[in-house]
Amino acid sequence: MIPEAEIKKLSIKTDSKIVLLVIDGLGGLPAYAEASAGRPDTNGKTELEAAHTPNLDKLARRAVCGATIPISYGITPGSAPAHLSLFGYDPLKHEIGRGVLEALGIGLELAAQDLAARGNFATMDKEGIIIDRRAGRISDEENKRICELLQNRIKQIEDVHVLIKPGKEHRFVILFRGEDLSEVNDTDPQKTGERTRKIEVSRAGQEKSARIVNEFVHLANEILKDEPKANTVLLRGICKYPAIPSMKELFKLKPAAIATYPMYCGLARLVGMEILDSGLTIEDEFRALKKNFSAYDFFYLHIKKTDSYGEDGNRKNKIKIIEEVDRFILQLLELNPDVLAITADHSTPALLKGHSWHPNPFLLYSKFIRVDGLKKFSERECVKGGLGIFSATEAMPLMLANALKLRKWGA
Amino acid sequence: MIPEAEIKKLSIKTDSKIVLLVIDGLGGLPAYAEASAGRPDTNGKTELEAAHTPNLDKLARRAVCGATIPISYGITPGSAPAHLSLFGYDPLKHEIGRGVLEALGIGLELAAQDLAARGNFATMDKEGIIIDRRAGRISDEENKRICELLQNRIKQIEDVHVLIKPGKEHRFVILFRGEDLSEVNDTDPQKTGERTRKIEVSRAGQEKSARIVNEFVHLANEILKDEPKANTVLLRGICKYPAIPSMKELFKLKPAAIATYPMYCGLARLVGMEILDSGLTIEDEFRALKKNFSAYDFFYLHIKKTDSYGEDGNRKNKIKIIEEVDRFILQLLELNPDVLAITADHSTPALLKGHSWHPNPFLLYSKFIRVDGLKKFSERECVKGGLGIFSATEAMPLMLANALKLRKWGA
Repeated sequence: MIPEAEIKKLSIKTDSKIVLLVIDGLGGLPAYAEASAGRPDTNGKTELEAAHTPNLDKLARRAVCGATIPISYGITPGSAPAHLSLFGYDPLKHEIGRGVLEALGIGLELAAQDLAARGNFATMDKEGIIIDRRAGRISDEENKRICELLQNRIKQIEDVHVLIKPGKEHRFVILFRGEDLSEVNDTDPQKTGERTRKIEVSRAGQEKSARIVNEFVHLANEILKDEPKANTVLLRGICKYPAIPSMKELFKLKPAAIATYPMYCGLARLVGMEILDSGLTIEDEFRALKKNFSAYDFFYLHIKKTDSYGEDGNRKNKIKIIEEVDRFILQLLELNPDVLAITADHSTPALLKGHSWHPNPFLLYSKFIRVDGLKKFSERECVKGGLGIFSATEAMPLMLANALKLRKWGA
Repeated sequence: MIPEAEIKKLSIKTDSKIVLLVIDGLGGLPAYAEASAGRPDTNGKTELEAAHTPNLDKLARRAVCGATIPISYGITPGSAPAHLSLFGYDPLKHEIGRGVLEALGIGLELAAQDLAARGNFATMDKEGIIIDRRAGRISDEENKRICELLQNRIKQIEDVHVLIKPGKEHRFVILFRGEDLSEVNDTDPQKTGERTRKIEVSRAGQEKSARIVNEFVHLANEILKDEPKANTVLLRGICKYPAIPSMKELFKLKPAAIATYPMYCGLARLVGMEILDSGLTIEDEFRALKKNFSAYDFFYLHIKKTDSYGEDGNRKNKIKIIEEVDRFILQLLELNPDVLAITADHSTPALLKGHSWHPNPFLLYSKFIRVDGLKKFSERECVKGGLGIFSATEAMPLMLANALKLRKWGA
């Protein structure tokens, strides 16, 4: 990919509109079970191939397609780096710390100076040795009760405000909000049989953070000392918001995001997108797109459930969601975007019940394409497409170019 | 691409001959106008697809093809970086300054120590405020007259010779020829309502250049003070010839260039090619190739008019030029080059009336290829070719390898 500094010089503000439809975890793997006892043959179909998608297929015949590698060959990405790639950022350069990701995931809005950490409630014995790093996986309700208890007793340490929010089971997120905070190491020893680690200052500028975090752990231990299970806290990924240049700064875009899960709204906000109000269904999301279409020039529309059902190994429901999305394609085309890209952040094959490293189908539609004549929008058709197999980080330059938003490079 | 230092170690001198035929701006976009009111469909043809090219098509059936990305996905290159890529140089590493490019463009021969600048004649008011950065776009004749006036009065400043050459309208090129000159900032404020910027020394070694350039501006203002429009000069891109290792040094080649436009001769000279005398027509160029074929081992033959007609949006004439080139292919094959590559520097679709980011068709013919059986030489066939989609910087290693001019790397 071209360096950020270069694309920043090339990008220009225009009226043209780009829609990036991300069908999370869209790519799948062929189901071979009945045909050949689970071993590859020529009959298996992926979820996308098995889905009835007349509108996507019709669009593919007038578009140019390709397949994107999210990070690198064979590398299975998390949602954050996979999205960063699609948004035009080098995911190896812009790493998002665990604490910030967890905060984004539960919908916390972070400011640049905030220090975020992922927390586990844990159990320690009388000598302070960790004996259960997950406090017996306490219930969400227990978690909520304990977080409220802590939050009521710890609101501020020195001049730093402390925000404590429950996640699932034993997990919580903590935000330290104040001046002069910086990344520090984990307190979590990562195994039982050891004590919580005290934060040590390993470089200049960490003094205040070390003091605050250590004091928080000390106070939490005091407050929780009579809890039967969750009598201590382990903190990990104690980090700040990464300094990512915004899409406005790099690409001169006024971007908006339509997503139903907090994590994706958070990722979009991280690169400077405005988050649009939408309901919870796919229909709601496309309605929000239509309603706001005049006010922005870049739209990221995120479909979550293809990924969720892929993670569950629920091939049938993943296919249903793909078919549901297909029914909104005509409505999307009626908005007449100058550039439409339809792809995924990563694959989530039902067969693997998780993210995978496989390339994503990618469809690009604009006035300035060499239509490649593919007959169907699918993983295996797309790798034969006119765009070839390429890094997902090139999706943004391609979309910008097709929207005529990039000047010539060099004379 | 493999680093320059490595290829330099691998390259060997042999008798084999390589011809690189660059059909400038060859790639196009399908014309969809009649078929579907300008919207993509499956019937549109690009300029190359529409052209009758029996010889290129016949050759494609015996060759291996691919598609090259000039710089990076979505990036539209200028001629200079696009050519550097094809010549085997990383265009992001070797940037050519504006002043040098302009000098090459009007056919000036630059030496390594020359400082070149692009100039605009401009209008300033009595207080020295720039009120028109282009002096009302004076005519070429006016420009010539004023350049001669300046040149007659300013021949030397200190020990530095000054060469002033007119370009089009208000543009001119100035060369400062002498020892110890170095790149300095622009004098052009880039907007009206401001004064010409004085060159300031921002790093060691710029003292002499700053003095010379400031004195030139001072003298020019004196000489031009009674001109009605062009009463001052604005200088931009004040830079030196980039230090690019020659093709002889890197690839052990004795290369020659056949090109009808000064800019391309200049670029070829930049990488150490010898410029062959040729007339102005395509026929002249192929004749020059034949005449000089025994004396060099690498030939760059540049066809300009495909690009020019593309820039004009003249699809019909662009097609005609492609057909004209096609008629010389048999004659070219009769020379029996060991390696023949036919490609473009960048695409110039008539639809866009300018350069574009789309991949270039690439055809490679030698004894050591895996013929891929494509039926036609076109953009959309080439992306399906045996070489795949690849960076244009790989063209040179491929040509050298096919000419058996590269040793094994590692043991």
